[in-house]
Amino acid sequence: MAAYFVGVDLGGTNIKAGLVDEDANVKIKFSVPTGIEEGPDKVVANIVAAAERAIAEAGVDRKDVAGVGIGSPGPMSHRQGLVINPGNLPGMKNVPLRDLVAKATGIPTTLENDANAAAWGEFWAGAGKGVQDLVMFTLGTGVGGGVITEGKLLRGYFENAGELGHMLVQPGGRLCSCGQKGCLEAYSSAYFLARRAEEFIAEGRPSSLKTYVDRGEMLMAEHVVAASRAGDELARQVWDEACYFLAVACVIMQHVSNPQRVVMAGGLIAAGDALLQPIRKYFKELTWKLLDDGPEILFATLGNDAGFIGAAGCAWQAARTGEW
Amino acid sequence: MAAYFVGVDLGGTNIKAGLVDEDANVKIKFSVPTGIEEGPDKVVANIVAAAERAIAEAGVDRKDVAGVGIGSPGPMSHRQGLVINPGNLPGMKNVPLRDLVAKATGIPTTLENDANAAAWGEFWAGAGKGVQDLVMFTLGTGVGGGVITEGKLLRGYFENAGELGHMLVQPGGRLCSCGQKGCLEAYSSAYFLARRAEEFIAEGRPSSLKTYVDRGEMLMAEHVVAASRAGDELARQVWDEACYFLAVACVIMQHVSNPQRVVMAGGLIAAGDALLQPIRKYFKELTWKLLDDGPEILFATLGNDAGFIGAAGCAWQAARTGEW
Repeated sequence: MAAYFVGVDLGGTNIKAGLVDEDANVKIKFSVPTGIEEGPDKVVANIVAAAERAIAEAGVDRKDVAGVGIGSPGPMSHRQGLVINPGNLPGMKNVPLRDLVAKATGIPTTLENDANAAAWGEFWAGAGKGVQDLVMFTLGTGVGGGVITEGKLLRGYFENAGELGHMLVQPGGRLCSCGQKGCLEAYSSAYFLARRAEEFIAEGRPSSLKTYVDRGEMLMAEHVVAASRAGDELARQVWDEACYFLAVACVIMQHVSNPQRVVMAGGLIAAGDALLQPIRKYFKELTWKLLDDGPEILFATLGNDAGFIGAAGCAWQAARTGEW
Repeated sequence: MAAYFVGVDLGGTNIKAGLVDEDANVKIKFSVPTGIEEGPDKVVANIVAAAERAIAEAGVDRKDVAGVGIGSPGPMSHRQGLVINPGNLPGMKNVPLRDLVAKATGIPTTLENDANAAAWGEFWAGAGKGVQDLVMFTLGTGVGGGVITEGKLLRGYFENAGELGHMLVQPGGRLCSCGQKGCLEAYSSAYFLARRAEEFIAEGRPSSLKTYVDRGEMLMAEHVVAASRAGDELARQVWDEACYFLAVACVIMQHVSNPQRVVMAGGLIAAGDALLQPIRKYFKELTWKLLDDGPEILFATLGNDAGFIGAAGCAWQAARTGEW
C-alpha cells in the first residue's frame, strides 16, 4: 500500500502546500494566500482547504494519505500542537492548529516549527539525505536554524532549540532585533547586512551603494552582494563579515552537536560561491587542528519547497514513530 | 531482582571505581593508581581488577551485576568501544577497552567519554535529576562539557559533541591549547584564567598576585579567586571575564539545545557564589527578552564522584535500551 503525506508551509502571506509520497517525491504543489487579514478561523479553513485540494488534485486514494504535516512560524508548540503568537500572523494566538486540522480532515496531523520543518525537509529529501547528524542555517531576512542529531529533530525543553540566528558570535556586538548584542543574525542575515552597509555609508565611507541611499531606496542584501562582486570595498567588508560569522557559527556547532554536514539555505544562497567559498575558507582558519571532525558545508537543494516537503516529512516521521 | 552497576572513571593518574544500584545509590567506592607507566595491558588489568573488587567488596551477588560502565578521556569512540589516543594516557592507542573488560569480567560493558559520563551522572543522580534537557560545563584545568536532550546523550557524527570548552565565545581572541582563538576554555578554565592573570602582571599591572610570580611559583586559579575576593583589581577583572564568557556560553546553549538546566561542575565551583552569581547576572544581561526560555544555572552536586556514578549510569541506560 502506498502512503502519501500532505505538507503545509504556513507563512505570513502565503500557504504553500503539496502532497508527497513516502520517498519524498512531490506529486503536486501550489500556493494560496494565507488570508490572515480575515482572522484565524479563516486561516485554519484555508489550511484545511489546501490539504483537501492537494489530495484531490494529486488524484490519490484518500485512505492512502497517512498524515498531514504543518510547518508554522514560532512561537509555537509541537508538543501541544499549538500556534502561540507568531509575529507575522497577527491574531493567531493560541490556536490548536494540529487538532483543528486533524478533526476537519480526519487525517492524523503534526505541527512543527517552520525552520525545523525546512531542516527536516533537507534531511529527508535534500542536501542532508543519508546524513543523521545535520545542522541547517536558513539565511533570509533573519537567520533561522534546525539541528538534527541521530536522525531526530532537536527541540529542547522550551521547544526553542535550533534558534541558531541568536547564537552570540560577537558578545557585546551589534544589537539584534531580539534584544541581544552580537547575534549571528545581526551580522549574517539579509536584513542586517544591508543595515550594516547603510551605517558605514552614513559614517561617510565611500561606496557605490551610496546611490541607493541617495535615492532614498532601502538597500538590499542583493545590492551588497553585487557591489562586493564588482569590487566595492565597503560592500566587500560587510559581505566578508557576514561569511566570517557564519563560519564562527559552524565552528561552534562543530563542537556542540558535531554534525556530519552543515546546510546553508534561504535567499542569501543565491550568492553562490561568493557565499560558500568564504565560509569554507574561514571555517578552515577558525577550527581546531586537534581532530579532523569538521562538517561538510553545502547549500540546500530544495529551495522554497523545503518547508512543505519537510512538513510532509514530519508527518512521515510521525507515522513511523507514532508520535504526532 | 536487584540490579547493580559497576562504574569506572579512568583518569591519567587514578582509576576511580564503585558499585551503585539501579537507583544510583553508591554501595562502595575507591580509587587505585591507573598505572599508565606500566603500559596499556596493565591499565586494562587494573580496570578489570577494580571492577572485580567493587563487586566483591560490595558483597552483592555477581549475577545481579547487570553492567560495567567506563568513562574514558577522549579521543575515544563509544560506538566502537575504543580508547583512541588520550593525551593523559600515553601508550593507550586504539585499545578496544569495552570488549576487553566485557570478556575479562563476563559482564556487558559500555564505554563513554568521561565528560559525557560525568554529565550523565549529574543527570541520573545529581543536579540534573528529573530533567530531560541538560547542559553541563566542567570547569577544571580545561573546560569540558556534556549535552543531554530528551534524556539522551548527544554524541554527534564524529562522537565529539559537547566539546563545550571549544565553543568560540570571542572569535579571534586568546589562543587556546586546541589551536583555536577565542575558545571558552581560553578564558574560563582554571589553567587559562591563571595564565591570563600572569600575562597582565607581566605587562606591569599592579596586583597582590605578583608575589607568587616573584617567588617563581605558578599562579593557580584558587589564588586568583582569593585575590579577587580580597579586592585585587586585576584578579577581579580576570575572574569577572571568566564568568562573563561562561554566561555567553550559556546563552549560546540556550538557543542551540534549549536546556531546562545548566549545571556547572569541576574544581572551579569551589568558588561558590563568587562564580554562580556573576554567571547568572551576566546571563540575564546577555540573553534575549523575546521569550522567557532561559535555563536554571546551578552547581553540580556529585563532585568527583560524578565520573564513576555516571559511568555506572551509562551501563544502567545501556541495560535498559540494549545499546551497549
